[in-house]
Amino acid sequence: MHKLNSKSCYVNAKKINEECGCFGIYNVENAASMTYFGLHALQHRGQQACGIASSDNSNILCIKNQGLLTEVFNATVIDKLIGSNAVGHVRYATQSENIIENVQPLMCRAHQGEFAVVHNGQIVNSQELRFELEQNGSIFQSTSDSEIISHLIQKAEGKMIDKIKAAANMLQGAFAFIIMTKDCMYGIRDNNGLRPLSVGKIGEGYCVTSETCAFDIVNAKFLFDVMPGEIIKITPDGVEHVQYTTNTQHKMCAMEYIYFARPDSDIDQINVHTARRNSGRILARNDEVVADIVIGVPDSSLSAAQGYSEMSKLPYELGLIKNRYVGRTFIQPTQKQRENGVRMKLSAVSSIVKNKKIVMVDDSIVRGTTSKRIVQLLKDAGASEVHVRIASSPLISPCFYGVDTSTYDELISARLNVDELCEFIGADSLKFLEVDEMFEGNYTNNLCVACFNEVYPTQLYSLGKILKK
Amino acid sequence: MHKLNSKSCYVNAKKINEECGCFGIYNVENAASMTYFGLHALQHRGQQACGIASSDNSNILCIKNQGLLTEVFNATVIDKLIGSNAVGHVRYATQSENIIENVQPLMCRAHQGEFAVVHNGQIVNSQELRFELEQNGSIFQSTSDSEIISHLIQKAEGKMIDKIKAAANMLQGAFAFIIMTKDCMYGIRDNNGLRPLSVGKIGEGYCVTSETCAFDIVNAKFLFDVMPGEIIKITPDGVEHVQYTTNTQHKMCAMEYIYFARPDSDIDQINVHTARRNSGRILARNDEVVADIVIGVPDSSLSAAQGYSEMSKLPYELGLIKNRYVGRTFIQPTQKQRENGVRMKLSAVSSIVKNKKIVMVDDSIVRGTTSKRIVQLLKDAGASEVHVRIASSPLISPCFYGVDTSTYDELISARLNVDELCEFIGADSLKFLEVDEMFEGNYTNNLCVACFNEVYPTQLYSLGKILKK
Amino acid sequence: MHKLNSKSCYVNAKKINEECGCFGIYNVENAASMTYFGLHALQHRGQQACGIASSDNSNILCIKNQGLLTEVFNATVIDKLIGSNAVGHVRYATQSENIIENVQPLMCRAHQGEFAVVHNGQIVNSQELRFELEQNGSIFQSTSDSEIISHLIQKAEGKMIDKIKAAANMLQGAFAFIIMTKDCMYGIRDNNGLRPLSVGKIGEGYCVTSETCAFDIVNAKFLFDVMPGEIIKITPDGVEHVQYTTNTQHKMCAMEYIYFARPDSDIDQINVHTARRNSGRILARNDEVVADIVIGVPDSSLSAAQGYSEMSKLPYELGLIKNRYVGRTFIQPTQKQRENGVRMKLSAVSSIVKNKKIVMVDDSIVRGTTSKRIVQLLKDAGASEVHVRIASSPLISPCFYGVDTSTYDELISARLNVDELCEFIGADSLKFLEVDEMFEGNYTNNLCVACFNEVYPTQLYSLGKILKK
Amino acid sequence: MHKLNSKSCYVNAKKINEECGCFGIYNVENAASMTYFGLHALQHRGQQACGIASSDNSNILCIKNQGLLTEVFNATVIDKLIGSNAVGHVRYATQSENIIENVQPLMCRAHQGEFAVVHNGQIVNSQELRFELEQNGSIFQSTSDSEIISHLIQKAEGKMIDKIKAAANMLQGAFAFIIMTKDCMYGIRDNNGLRPLSVGKIGEGYCVTSETCAFDIVNAKFLFDVMPGEIIKITPDGVEHVQYTTNTQHKMCAMEYIYFARPDSDIDQINVHTARRNSGRILARNDEVVADIVIGVPDSSLSAAQGYSEMSKLPYELGLIKNRYVGRTFIQPTQKQRENGVRMKLSAVSSIVKNKKIVMVDDSIVRGTTSKRIVQLLKDAGASEVHVRIASSPLISPCFYGVDTSTYDELISARLNVDELCEFIGADSLKFLEVDEMFEGNYTNNLCVACFNEVYPTQLYSLGKILKK
Repeated sequence: MHKLNSKSCYVNAKKINEECGCFGIYNVENAASMTYFGLHALQHRGQQACGIASSDNSNILCIKNQGLLTEVFNATVIDKLIGSNAVGHVRYATQSENIIENVQPLMCRAHQGEFAVVHNGQIVNSQELRFELEQNGSIFQSTSDSEIISHLIQKAEGKMIDKIKAAANMLQGAFAFIIMTKDCMYGIRDNNGLRPLSVGKIGEGYCVTSETCAFDIVNAKFLFDVMPGEIIKITPDGVEHVQYTTNTQHKMCAMEYIYFARPDSDIDQINVHTARRNSGRILARNDEVVADIVIGVPDSSLSAAQGYSEMSKLPYELGLIKNRYVGRTFIQPTQKQRENGVRMKLSAVSSIVKNKKIVMVDDSIVRGTTSKRIVQLLKDAGASEVHVRIASSPLISPCFYGVDTSTYDELISARLNVDELCEFIGADSLKFLEVDEMFEGNYTNNLCVACFNEVYPTQLYSLGKILKK
Repeated sequence: MHKLNSKSCYVNAKKINEECGCFGIYNVENAASMTYFGLHALQHRGQQACGIASSDNSNILCIKNQGLLTEVFNATVIDKLIGSNAVGHVRYATQSENIIENVQPLMCRAHQGEFAVVHNGQIVNSQELRFELEQNGSIFQSTSDSEIISHLIQKAEGKMIDKIKAAANMLQGAFAFIIMTKDCMYGIRDNNGLRPLSVGKIGEGYCVTSETCAFDIVNAKFLFDVMPGEIIKITPDGVEHVQYTTNTQHKMCAMEYIYFARPDSDIDQINVHTARRNSGRILARNDEVVADIVIGVPDSSLSAAQGYSEMSKLPYELGLIKNRYVGRTFIQPTQKQRENGVRMKLSAVSSIVKNKKIVMVDDSIVRGTTSKRIVQLLKDAGASEVHVRIASSPLISPCFYGVDTSTYDELISARLNVDELCEFIGADSLKFLEVDEMFEGNYTNNLCVACFNEVYPTQLYSLGKILKK
Repeated sequence: MHKLNSKSCYVNAKKINEECGCFGIYNVENAASMTYFGLHALQHRGQQACGIASSDNSNILCIKNQGLLTEVFNATVIDKLIGSNAVGHVRYATQSENIIENVQPLMCRAHQGEFAVVHNGQIVNSQELRFELEQNGSIFQSTSDSEIISHLIQKAEGKMIDKIKAAANMLQGAFAFIIMTKDCMYGIRDNNGLRPLSVGKIGEGYCVTSETCAFDIVNAKFLFDVMPGEIIKITPDGVEHVQYTTNTQHKMCAMEYIYFARPDSDIDQINVHTARRNSGRILARNDEVVADIVIGVPDSSLSAAQGYSEMSKLPYELGLIKNRYVGRTFIQPTQKQRENGVRMKLSAVSSIVKNKKIVMVDDSIVRGTTSKRIVQLLKDAGASEVHVRIASSPLISPCFYGVDTSTYDELISARLNVDELCEFIGADSLKFLEVDEMFEGNYTNNLCVACFNEVYPTQLYSLGKILKK
Repeated sequence: MHKLNSKSCYVNAKKINEECGCFGIYNVENAASMTYFGLHALQHRGQQACGIASSDNSNILCIKNQGLLTEVFNATVIDKLIGSNAVGHVRYATQSENIIENVQPLMCRAHQGEFAVVHNGQIVNSQELRFELEQNGSIFQSTSDSEIISHLIQKAEGKMIDKIKAAANMLQGAFAFIIMTKDCMYGIRDNNGLRPLSVGKIGEGYCVTSETCAFDIVNAKFLFDVMPGEIIKITPDGVEHVQYTTNTQHKMCAMEYIYFARPDSDIDQINVHTARRNSGRILARNDEVVADIVIGVPDSSLSAAQGYSEMSKLPYELGLIKNRYVGRTFIQPTQKQRENGVRMKLSAVSSIVKNKKIVMVDDSIVRGTTSKRIVQLLKDAGASEVHVRIASSPLISPCFYGVDTSTYDELISARLNVDELCEFIGADSLKFLEVDEMFEGNYTNNLCVACFNEVYPTQLYSLGKILKK
């Protein structure tokens, strides 16, 4: 592989965090509308853009755009997407990457056959692969590294399964993707199992999803998780399992359990709500804080708060309320209104928190600014003490596998120790879980905790340059 | 008053249930955008239509339409609504009443002075008043009984406060309304206090709202509740209190506590979450059911479920998940998809409920069809037993005061006793609260419980005809 | 009638110019969709708002909003408007009057019967009538004087036809309106015949329209024009003619012929294109200007330019092109871009006008700014001389009958004589028609030419105050 | 080059007709908004989709979508497109090709440099080039042949100008495209000059456009036409001319003059309106038909009708009116309404055509169905005779260069002779121009008239298979 010319690649070096959701359905009537429902259950994984491609076994049609599912699709649009196979995608993207070319599914249309790709994760050697491909004349329309997958498949030789194997072996990093050809569907997961991908049964057909919470909505039953380094191929004859590499380990992203997934999902067969509640229990185990009530930060920390309450025997109260109905089209308060105390997302319930010593449970601290604001909110509402308890460890190092914490600057725990951070957020005390306790809390050691301990399960290629020595 | 000619009024006899939310702000910079934020906190009270009228002390401009706040307003529109006083409204309406003329604020433009009205509640003598007004040549553009208020005010003599007093004394039923003239604001509450209306302070200005949860979002502090039979008048000099009748009692709608209000609101200074949790505790008090876990139906029953769990010592679990992001524009499943099990609103978490004996807490049962569906959902997900516990009494009689349960046909408890209902919904057991326990649960006797015991706090006029003898 | 208190009425004194289009259809299948098509042919009469009310003989449903037909209606919306009778409206409004309450049809819902009103024109005694009505307790939601009609009808005694007669006799000014009750339709025209209203036959049914160009689109055949001072009543038995006053004359608004109507319409049975072409011929009759080509300002002046060309024997050329596709959502050039010559609406065709002496025919001059801009455009494109010829007389006095030229300030010919105006617009010469020639051009003496000669066919009430002595 | 495997290419063989409009602007403040205005003047060339890419000399940002300019862009969106260089595109597409991936500008993002491409025309060897590229691993996301250009450039060696030269030499067919890199702009025209491309001056900057009518709107002055086989390169130093091949001829598409271009455009320095009028004159030259009036079918045939009128001395009348305001969102009449005579696009003016012998001038006849409908319309309106005169020759062979007449089945003149066609459309007589007369009418022999005489100026590759022997 060429040595990367760092200057020339600068343009492409924008970090693309692909926190998103993939869904595929095979051999089910009205596959596109079923995919629409499935994506609905995954909408929390990405609200910036979405798309669906469907196949009637002879042609693939793809409709996609920026916006929520309800903004991009209506009944007329879904009706155009005929066929009994479909794949869909919901996408999270930072402002600068929110360009139409990045929206998935990505189509590859060629005389050798059409296919559609949806992708969740981040390729760590994407710049190297892209540079190589561009050197040989490939053109990229998007800034997304998902486009690389299509190129690698198209460049490879042999049958589709051989091409996918070849491509998967060239990709390094975190990825789970679904590929739909005219008549087959493939699910692929990286050799560290960093991103989830589960398969379910729905009548005579199949369903592939980033999160199992999508099974229930379409009445599918869980069959199995795609394994690290595995490709599954779905045809009218059923499911084939192909191991594309034996160089595997199991390092599921801990942040999926901690805040990203929906509580009713099972990741690698562990229920997320249960794991969070257990983490809350462990957090309370040796905590000797004197307090009146426990509250959680909605929505992702409610399970951990409940666990904390159960273990500590402190009553669990509804001290913070999340305001619904706020979307991208909601008018935001002006700076002056903010200063005057106008609050959009969270409200503290004064009648509950007033004059109380509070344990406030949250899932994690990234920048610290949100925690600071919530502590202030509770104190403004009359709380006499606020003790912050975090159901994970301090985030000290960037993620290169798809979670949107990509630089040290964003991570306050990379700069401040726990005492300093406690002071910064204005809490009366602050405690985190130990890394070991996270394994215990999530009932598994098969976790990537690189953002907590800087131990990365893969090589980092040129991305590694930003790491502190 | 004329004897009502029932035939000729038939056209107008469509029942208009005004479950909705009112918000007003006085003497605060950018009043319209503050009203927009305040209405956001009240959006759960009505998603069909909304509007804001603002005054710059010389003119009133009103913008309103069908749709959510985010659909009707954007920054450009809000910017047109200049001035430091404003009133706004979010409206719930059944399909047939969802006409543009019914959307509030309603404007009255006359040489004697302009004013805007927003209204929450239902006037029980609206047909009689309307008939009388029409006989004398008044014209109505809407089918809403809120329009009557404007007519009565315009017809009355004297200063604005005198006109409002006269009008309020003619209206019977449940109402809380806000009137904004060019330079004053009035809040009016019916003589039974059936609908809530609270006043807060925000800097030098004031804020009037249907629910106190709107105070927090605009950083207002609670001042007082408008009292039954009271008019409050806000001017640059402060607030004046005027009692328009001494024939009062205090009969706050119990359903506000039970399911309508947001848990962080205080109604007549009792916190809704606390009242619900207490009701859940009472429900568990003498319950001898043998079960493994307690779950609540999201969102309104979670507080009661928590109370039940605390009293019964059974663990509180997250067995049902509500799917977010579903709005009016969401494509609904076809009948066939529904039959095949496609589910949009609620999911049961299989890993939590499987093989469990479950206590399922809900706030109330109206038609019974939702309860039946949820019980089935839990059983499909593997629950071995489902014991339904309702944190209120059986609904046996229609509401004429603004809650959308207006006929016997809609109320399954008007037809079935508890055992029959238990069988209908497929539960293993079913229990309700007693009426007395509801008073205890809500910490007050100042409640209207007419829908539970048929004792109506007002005359019913022609509406009473539908009552069973 | 009370003496008008000018101060108290100030709020309502905003001048409402109702240049708009009315359409009704009776006893025709899918009346609402036919009305939609009919309004399409009238869309040039108003682009700010529109609405349709339909009746299935038992209920009237009305849907309306701000925007073009294509913005307010779609197939789903039209399908809700069931029934075989319907009325519709397209509305022109200045910014300040573009409020939702002003959008028509206006509904009146009462136990005595529902009806919908659409109105074209302007009531000159509206302030007096409104004052009187408000004194007696009537309330107005709109600032439109169309709402007065409903009030007068509702206040009157007797059968519907009697009520309409009574109301029509109280209204002064220019009006043509259509009223639809559950099962009948009425067309009313003012006693001076200032606004057009024509009736056609369509199968077994009828069609009423502001302009005959709407007949063709729905395949209706012209039957007759409603006469000054006449009410026509359409029932299942056919059409009845009722003369509500014998105090009539025939003074059709000259501006309808000159620029407002579509060229393929016949007004009072004179074709508009033919009238315009004839005016162009008269304009050329004694004109001794030496020129190379004749051009018209698109679209309304093309007929007159053609007539001028035919009479003068100068070739008619396409020297100005109108840019299509510009609507309210089109981004406008910034001031700086305008100064740099960015032009949106009209382009001059350089290859045609370069080095040519040009006769530029336009229909009228209001403010003079448009003419000035077009002359400059032609000179920039290389025209050596531009001789402006106007196919009407100088506008010297305001219109109170519905044309948007309501103050002297807007009328440049009220301030400048022809020579001064010629200099202002930068033309090489300028000629208008004489008032007598307008009668000749339009083939009729039945014209209101008040805006050209200050002879108003009605009393002006309080509006007359702005007239120069 | 590989022999084309016809079966495997079938999927890609959908004919993509790129009738569209390109616009570029260089070194002009607010280039994106100027491009928006320029595209407005080209909107008649494509209403299905549009896009703009702008460069601030360091980054290229591209925004594009399906819909009209007013639907895709608003002020907020345009403001994001910073920089003083921009290219834009409006696109016509048949339903099946109206996919988001086909919308232009197409971006190529690579470490060697980013560029944006907009394209007008059709590549006749696109399947062969695409097959070759796909064999070597290139992937295509669109079905548009514009994507091929980017691939060929990216694959070529050397500096950008060398890469474009190499690519242009591989492309066969009709094309005019604009390429924008971060800091330069290129205009390229095929070696037969089949598609127009003109360059203008605007202050210190430049403007490149498919049609000169866009110059006027942005106040640019015509400089020169790009010549067949030429590349022009615009840099801060001015314009360079590079001839990429000397194997050239000049064969401008005749249909641009006949119906596609706007009348105020000059194509190869001949004004379109003038050419059309001249064609109308020639059409009348030896025509001995006895008639009363001449009418044109709006909008494209009005110039020819005027010419016919001038030569024949028959009066030119406005017998047909086009209904405006119909767009893609307009509700269409049902089949039954159509049968009952509901007409959307054209109206016949009865008062003009009744009892008249009419010469109806149209620009061309493709399927014959429109002509048939218009003749019927005129007869329904009372015309006694309708003589159809076409200002071009019969369309007998498909176009492969970008005009949407791609199969014999669509061309009625490929099946019927003039007499048969006259009977089919129900006319009293029918006449076309001879091919020679078209050259005379358009004042040039530099025309491609392949669709009239089957003489194609290029090889046709695999497309030629559909030609009759």
